[in-house]
Amino acid sequence: MKHLELKNNTCYDGSQIEPMWAFKTFGIKDSSIVTWIGPMKIEQNHLVDFEDVGLEIKGEKMLHFIIEHFDVQPADINLCYHRQRIFVMIIKELLQNLGIATSRKGDDLYYQKLSSNGKKNGKLSVSIATCSVSSMKVHFALNLVEKGTPENVETAGILEPYGNIEISDVKNLVDEACKNYINEISSIKKDISKTRVF
Amino acid sequence: MKHLELKNNTCYDGSQIEPMWAFKTFGIKDSSIVTWIGPMKIEQNHLVDFEDVGLEIKGEKMLHFIIEHFDVQPADINLCYHRQRIFVMIIKELLQNLGIATSRKGDDLYYQKLSSNGKKNGKLSVSIATCSVSSMKVHFALNLVEKGTPENVETAGILEPYGNIEISDVKNLVDEACKNYINEISSIKKDISKTRVF
Amino acid sequence: MKHLELKNNTCYDGSQIEPMWAFKTFGIKDSSIVTWIGPMKIEQNHLVDFEDVGLEIKGEKMLHFIIEHFDVQPADINLCYHRQRIFVMIIKELLQNLGIATSRKGDDLYYQKLSSNGKKNGKLSVSIATCSVSSMKVHFALNLVEKGTPENVETAGILEPYGNIEISDVKNLVDEACKNYINEISSIKKDISKTRVF
Amino acid sequence: MKHLELKNNTCYDGSQIEPMWAFKTFGIKDSSIVTWIGPMKIEQNHLVDFEDVGLEIKGEKMLHFIIEHFDVQPADINLCYHRQRIFVMIIKELLQNLGIATSRKGDDLYYQKLSSNGKKNGKLSVSIATCSVSSMKVHFALNLVEKGTPENVETAGILEPYGNIEISDVKNLVDEACKNYINEISSIKKDISKTRVF
Amino acid sequence: MKHLELKNNTCYDGSQIEPMWAFKTFGIKDSSIVTWIGPMKIEQNHLVDFEDVGLEIKGEKMLHFIIEHFDVQPADINLCYHRQRIFVMIIKELLQNLGIATSRKGDDLYYQKLSSNGKKNGKLSVSIATCSVSSMKVHFALNLVEKGTPENVETAGILEPYGNIEISDVKNLVDEACKNYINEISSIKKDISKTRVF
Amino acid sequence: MKHLELKNNTCYDGSQIEPMWAFKTFGIKDSSIVTWIGPMKIEQNHLVDFEDVGLEIKGEKMLHFIIEHFDVQPADINLCYHRQRIFVMIIKELLQNLGIATSRKGDDLYYQKLSSNGKKNGKLSVSIATCSVSSMKVHFALNLVEKGTPENVETAGILEPYGNIEISDVKNLVDEACKNYINEISSIKKDISKTRVF
Repeated sequence: MKHLELKNNTCYDGSQIEPMWAFKTFGIKDSSIVTWIGPMKIEQNHLVDFEDVGLEIKGEKMLHFIIEHFDVQPADINLCYHRQRIFVMIIKELLQNLGIATSRKGDDLYYQKLSSNGKKNGKLSVSIATCSVSSMKVHFALNLVEKGTPENVETAGILEPYGNIEISDVKNLVDEACKNYINEISSIKKDISKTRVF
Repeated sequence: MKHLELKNNTCYDGSQIEPMWAFKTFGIKDSSIVTWIGPMKIEQNHLVDFEDVGLEIKGEKMLHFIIEHFDVQPADINLCYHRQRIFVMIIKELLQNLGIATSRKGDDLYYQKLSSNGKKNGKLSVSIATCSVSSMKVHFALNLVEKGTPENVETAGILEPYGNIEISDVKNLVDEACKNYINEISSIKKDISKTRVF
Repeated sequence: MKHLELKNNTCYDGSQIEPMWAFKTFGIKDSSIVTWIGPMKIEQNHLVDFEDVGLEIKGEKMLHFIIEHFDVQPADINLCYHRQRIFVMIIKELLQNLGIATSRKGDDLYYQKLSSNGKKNGKLSVSIATCSVSSMKVHFALNLVEKGTPENVETAGILEPYGNIEISDVKNLVDEACKNYINEISSIKKDISKTRVF
Repeated sequence: MKHLELKNNTCYDGSQIEPMWAFKTFGIKDSSIVTWIGPMKIEQNHLVDFEDVGLEIKGEKMLHFIIEHFDVQPADINLCYHRQRIFVMIIKELLQNLGIATSRKGDDLYYQKLSSNGKKNGKLSVSIATCSVSSMKVHFALNLVEKGTPENVETAGILEPYGNIEISDVKNLVDEACKNYINEISSIKKDISKTRVF
Repeated sequence: MKHLELKNNTCYDGSQIEPMWAFKTFGIKDSSIVTWIGPMKIEQNHLVDFEDVGLEIKGEKMLHFIIEHFDVQPADINLCYHRQRIFVMIIKELLQNLGIATSRKGDDLYYQKLSSNGKKNGKLSVSIATCSVSSMKVHFALNLVEKGTPENVETAGILEPYGNIEISDVKNLVDEACKNYINEISSIKKDISKTRVF
Repeated sequence: MKHLELKNNTCYDGSQIEPMWAFKTFGIKDSSIVTWIGPMKIEQNHLVDFEDVGLEIKGEKMLHFIIEHFDVQPADINLCYHRQRIFVMIIKELLQNLGIATSRKGDDLYYQKLSSNGKKNGKLSVSIATCSVSSMKVHFALNLVEKGTPENVETAGILEPYGNIEISDVKNLVDEACKNYINEISSIKKDISKTRVF
C-alpha cells in the first residue's frame, strides 16, 4: 500500500472517489492513499452520499485523503466503512497528540471552539466510503480553515485562531496518519496468521 | 446486539472465547457483549494466540469484555480484527475522557506511569479475536490493578495510585464502551443504506 | 427491517427496482419492504429480466412489493433469489389460507380458473430479483384483476369473480406477508446463534 | 446434485449431519440428498442444536432427508438456513397436495389433529442446518407415526389414523420433495444468468 | 457449462466482454465459453484494461474465447483472474503438444521466432478478465497471423511460416482448450467434496 | 509471502498440512511456502484426502512444498484448489524446461517412462489442498525416486535413470517454482488494480 502526496492545489469535486482514480491518474497499481491540500466543491453528479443531495459540500482549504483498497475481493462496503472509522479514529488520536481534543460521531469529527456567544461544536471534517465490485474507497477531508465552508453548518478548521497548530504540523499529521493507517491494516494481517480459529 | 453485565467474579480461563459461549451459558440468541470484573488465568488448552504458547497470561482484577457477532456470514476474521481495533480505540477514547492518556499499538493499550526510576510504559490490556465458521469473537481485558500480572512484563492498572479513576468510573466505562461500540456497528449499517456504489 | 405501505396509486415502471430507491424516495435508512396497489407498465430501459426484452410487462391493478436488503455485504444475488423464493412461498401459504389454491413454478404463481372452455392455468404474478454491490432487491407483484395484463399470456387476478376474496382481505394479505417474511429472516438469524458448526 | 434413497432401516443418531458423511459412507462426490425411513435417537455428542442439550430427540419411524451442498464456497450457514426453509416449504406444499394441511413456524411443521379433548397442534418434524468451512448440511425428518416421539411434546405422524396417506404416498413424497428441491436450486442458478444487475 | 462455437467472422470490438453478452446474444442460461475466429479492433468505450487507454488493440485474424461464469456469487475478480491464468496455461500446454513452445508472463503468451536479424520474442495473445456483481468474464485471443497487429509491438501468429500448425489444428485446439478448461473447473468441484477441512 | 527452505530430512507425516504449522514451527507471520527434501509416510489421523482412507501414501525421497495463504478471508477452498492447479502447472512448465515432458490430470503429474515391457505412465506427484476458516493450505510433493512409493501404483521419480536431471537441477526447480508462484499471485493482484469492472 502506497502513500502519494500531491503538491498542487487540486479541487476535490467528487470525481476522485471513483474507483481506480489513482491508477487512471497516477498509474498506481496497488492499494493507495493519495493526499493533498486543496478546496472542495462537490459536483452533484459525483455525489456519493445520497443524504447530501441538494446540499453544498464545500470548503476553501481542506486536507484530503483518498484511500483505495484492492486487497479484499469482492469489495465489501461493510469492511470499507470499518476501515473508514479506524482512519477517522487515527486522525483523532493524532489531533489529540497535537493538543486538539475532538469528539467523534460516526465518521465526523467535531471541535469545541470558543466564540463570542459561548462554546460551539464545529464540524471539522467530511467523509464517505463507497465501493465498486473490485475496489473499496474512502474520502476523508479535514477543514484547515472555516473559510468557504457551508454557511448553514457550524464548522471549525484546525488552523483557525482557536486551534493551535501550524502548517508544518499538518505535514506531519498527513505522514503520521498514512503511516499509522497502513501499519494498522498490516498489523491485522499479521495478527490473523498467529490466531487459532475454531 | 445485547450487553449482559455479570456481577460475579468469573475467572477468564480462555473457555469464554469459544464460539457460542454466550448462548450455551446465558441463552443469548443474538450478537452480544458480556462484561465482568474478575481475574484472568488462561489455561494452555484454551490458548487462541499461538504467540502466547508457554507464557503466563494472567491478572488478579481485570475488566473483561467478550464480544460475539453473528451478523456476517461466513464469519470473517479480518473483519473481526477490524472490529477489535475499533473497540480498543473506543476504550482509548473513554480512558482519555477520564484523564488517562494511553498509547496504542495494534490491540494493546499502554499507560505511561511514573515509578521511582523514571517513566515506564505499562501494558494495560490483553486482547484477541478469533472465529468459527459462523461466529466472530473478541476478548478484551483491561487491568484494574497490576497485582497478579506477569512478572516479566511491565504492566499498569487503571485503578493504581498513579491512575486517577475510581471503581464507579469503571462501571460507567463499561456501559459507555458497550453502548458506543454497539452504536458504532449500527451506524455503519445505516451509512451503507445511504451510499451510492459504483 | 421496516414495512412502508403506500396509499397512492403509484405505477410500477421498473425504476423502483433500482438500489436505494427506498432511501432516495422515502428516506428509509434500513432494509425495507414498500408495498402498494397500482398499475404496472415497465419501461424498456428499466428492464432487469433480460428474458423480457421486447415484451409488454403490464397490469392495471396489481399488488406490489419492493424488498431491499442491506444485511449481507457484499450483496449476493444467489441469496437474494433464495429470499425471493421464500417470499413467493409465503404469499402462496397466505393465498391458501384465503382459499385460493395456487401452483408455483420458480418465482411464478398460477391459479387454475374455470372458463367457458374448461380449466385454465392463469399466471397470477410477476417477480424479479437483482442487486448492486451493496443492495439486494426483489420486486413481486400479484394481479388483483386480469384487466390490462398482456393479451398473449393467460393470466388471472385474485379479485376476479372466480377468485373469492375481497379488497379487505388484500390489506390483511399485505400485512401478513410482510410480517411473516420479516419474521422468517429474523428467525434464521436466531437459529444461527444456537447452532453448532464443524 | 444427486438423490440417494436408502432401503435399510438406518437409525438417525446425529452422526449423519457431519460434513462429508455422504462421501465417506457412499462415495458421493457431489452435492446430494440421502433419504430413508428409520428411527431417530440423537446421541448427545452429535447434538448440533444447542437448544436441545439435555432433551430427548427421538421417534420410532421417521422419514429422513440429509442434504449436503458444496456449491457455495466458503460454506454459508445463512444461505444454508434459507435453503432449509425452502425445503420445509416444499414439504408443506406436497403435504397440502396430499390433503394434509400443516402450519409452519420457522423450520417446524405442525398438524392440527382431533383428539378426544379437542383439537391439538402436533409437531410433525424436526430439522437443523449446520456447516463446516466447505460444506452446508441440512437434516429434516418427518414423523410417520407418533410412536417413540418424546412424551413431553405433543406430536403427530402423517401415517396416523387422523392423517390420510399411505406408505405408497410417502415414497412419492420423497421423490417429489427431492426433485422439486433440486429443481428449485437449479432454477435459481438459471435466473441469475438472465438478470441485469446494477 | 457450455461451449458455443461461432462460424462467422465476428469482430471482437470489446462489447463481447460485457456481462451477459452470451445470454443477450445467444440465449445461453448458463456459464459458457463462446469461441470464434475473427478480427479484433477494440473500441475505446469498451476498453476494460485501463493500461490500454490510447493504445490500438487489434489483429486481423485471431482465435477468440469469451468465458463467463455464474457459479460463484458474488462474482470475484480475484478468482476470475486465477481462472484466466489456468486457461492460459491450458492453451500453453496444448500449443506445446502441437510443437509450439511458448513462454508465459502473467496472462500473455510469447513465441520465440526467428527473423532475419536473430531471435525475437513475439507476443501471441491478449487477455483480460473482469466482472460485474454477478458474472465473471474472461477474454483470451490468440493471433493466428501477425497481419493487422499493432506495429509498435513485436507479435507472432501460430499460423505464420515459422509456426508449424494448420487451420485444422486450430479447430482441435479450440475443442481441446474448452473441454480441458471445463473439466478442470469441474474436477476442482469434485476435489472439494472429498477433502477434509479444519 | 515468504519462501523457507528446510535443509533437514523432515518426514511428511500429514501434520504439516494443518493450518498455522508454519507459524507454530518456524514463527512465520505471513503467507508462506516451506520446502524440503524428505520421505513421506502419512499417518491415518492426518489424512485430508478422504479418498485415500486405508491407502498407503508414501515415498522415500520426495520434494515437498507446503503453501499457506492468509490473504483471502474467510479462507475459500475453491480458490485454494485453483491456486493448487496453478502451482502444479508451474511445476509442469519447469519440468518441461528441464526436458521432462509430463502430462497432468487435475493435480497429478505423470511421466511416460520406458520399461522393459513398453511405455508406462508413472505417477510423479501427490497433492492436496485444504483449509480452516482463516487459512488455505496446499501440499504438493514430487517423487525424486521411485523407491518407497506404494507398490500397487505405477510411479516415477524425476531423478531416476529414465529421467534426465540432477540434484542441482532440483535446487533450482525449488527456487524457480516458489518464485514463479509468488509472482503469479502477485501479478494477479496488480492486474485487478488496472481492470475496469461493470
